[in-house]
Amino acid sequence: MRLVTGDEITAAEKRLDGRVVRTPLLAAPPLSAELGLRISVKAENLQHTGSFKARGAMNALLARAEREGMPAGLVAFSAGNHAIAVAFVGRAFALPTVVCMPPGAVPTKVDTVRRLGAEVVLTHDLLDTARGLAADRGYHLLPPFDDPDVIAGQATIGRELLADGPVPAVVLVPVGGGGLISGIAAAVKEAFPATRIVGVEPDGANAMSYALRTGTPTPPVRPASVADGLAAPFAGRHTLAHVRALVDDVVEVPEESILPAWSDLVDATKLLVEPAAAVTLAALRAGLVEVAPGDRTVLVLSGGNVALSRLTTLG
Amino acid sequence: MRLVTGDEITAAEKRLDGRVVRTPLLAAPPLSAELGLRISVKAENLQHTGSFKARGAMNALLARAEREGMPAGLVAFSAGNHAIAVAFVGRAFALPTVVCMPPGAVPTKVDTVRRLGAEVVLTHDLLDTARGLAADRGYHLLPPFDDPDVIAGQATIGRELLADGPVPAVVLVPVGGGGLISGIAAAVKEAFPATRIVGVEPDGANAMSYALRTGTPTPPVRPASVADGLAAPFAGRHTLAHVRALVDDVVEVPEESILPAWSDLVDATKLLVEPAAAVTLAALRAGLVEVAPGDRTVLVLSGGNVALSRLTTLG
Repeated sequence: MRLVTGDEITAAEKRLDGRVVRTPLLAAPPLSAELGLRISVKAENLQHTGSFKARGAMNALLARAEREGMPAGLVAFSAGNHAIAVAFVGRAFALPTVVCMPPGAVPTKVDTVRRLGAEVVLTHDLLDTARGLAADRGYHLLPPFDDPDVIAGQATIGRELLADGPVPAVVLVPVGGGGLISGIAAAVKEAFPATRIVGVEPDGANAMSYALRTGTPTPPVRPASVADGLAAPFAGRHTLAHVRALVDDVVEVPEESILPAWSDLVDATKLLVEPAAAVTLAALRAGLVEVAPGDRTVLVLSGGNVALSRLTTLG
Repeated sequence: MRLVTGDEITAAEKRLDGRVVRTPLLAAPPLSAELGLRISVKAENLQHTGSFKARGAMNALLARAEREGMPAGLVAFSAGNHAIAVAFVGRAFALPTVVCMPPGAVPTKVDTVRRLGAEVVLTHDLLDTARGLAADRGYHLLPPFDDPDVIAGQATIGRELLADGPVPAVVLVPVGGGGLISGIAAAVKEAFPATRIVGVEPDGANAMSYALRTGTPTPPVRPASVADGLAAPFAGRHTLAHVRALVDDVVEVPEESILPAWSDLVDATKLLVEPAAAVTLAALRAGLVEVAPGDRTVLVLSGGNVALSRLTTLG
């Protein structure tokens, strides 16, 4: 399985210029003080659509358009942030867009997809329904993570965080299907091979760790995590190859450590992030990440799509 | 009463360089779409201490140090963000710091002040106690808003928002004692006199509007607002002079409009802000601000010091 190249990432940067938010890299003094590190956060919660997913979806569509022209429409399947991202991209190019979402998807996310003008099909059978719709209507299916163009889109985050701050000793990335960490690792390792890239999964949604341990991309247990944004049922083939080749470590945090880390992360950064974005802080606190005092450490805040009411129980 | 000059603002910029956060100016597409404007937010919730107050306090101390040397210690009186800011500044220069806070102050704010190493004196008689402490110990009293150096410090926000985006048609600023809007108006009007500066107060804490209407800086009713950050008991003499000379309008929003605006503002911007920061959105929604479709509009988000549990009731 080939890895995305620096040229592909540069092409993605050009495609995304002016179409996605160049999110800020922000110092986090309270976290730095707590952990004895120099911590910055890459605020992808401030991205269009409220998550990094806008980058991969936008790049995948535009790369496809360069090769074969604009498709007649878009199809996607996702419970959350990828659904919103594809609806956003479809709207940007006035393409009819259908998104397959599970009946249990968070109502506010379904609403957001509809508000962006996409058609929502609620189904338990996400992948087959999406494939069927794409075939029937002649629409293009935009994959959520396991695709070189999607990975190259997410890689632009790595380029930006290198441009906006000093070379980090370690970059911590939440892992769901693995598209985000694959891209960031490709960008960062190309420039600074000594910078460590560490992925973090909830132990309730650990497809990537499972795949690394067993060679099998699909764990036997369905994922279930308070960090719902990370509940990918399988690791991708492309993403697994990237993680094997480029990522230094993938660690798992206990489910019960995520919500306390989340509450503290919001409080410390003054950024509304979703629980998925807090697994990296949980991992640092649990001592799961090899760091030296004073290390420049970047936490990638993957998204901010969360109902405010979820903060209620935490205070 | 003289107004702060461009030279004073430039001096403040030099003093604050590297000592406060150059906060980002962020586009807010969901708000822009809702209101038919081009809205950006100046994210002072990301400032050190969680509010813009760090700027004024830092500048006031450093300007005083240039004139008379570093003081032996610092005294302040405040229920909230200014208390935290002075504790932060005292810590930065290793100065013993005493902060007088009312017994009803939010416990997390009292804790924050103590965590920064300041001594907290709980008293109903804030001003006299602070003056007494300053005299007894030979410490310097850092005023919360009604001071040219404080105003010049807050003015650096105006300089930054002009540097980081196109010229705004209107800048909307929450008003408590008036230091923030005085500084921003001084900076913006010097460069672009046609840009409108509009202040917003809760109708439960409207000292500035009252002063503009009556000429009396202290309203007869004690301020009480869900936007506790804006509950200044009086408008300052310096700030009233700046507002009279430089501000186009000051409007009052109904108390009951603030929390819904707050919840939506957090959701739309993915920034944790305090209710005070949402009065500008409430004013736009109520049609209290003269704007034309497509106007470039900056909302100054004054701070983010709020207990997460307050978001509970909103969801």
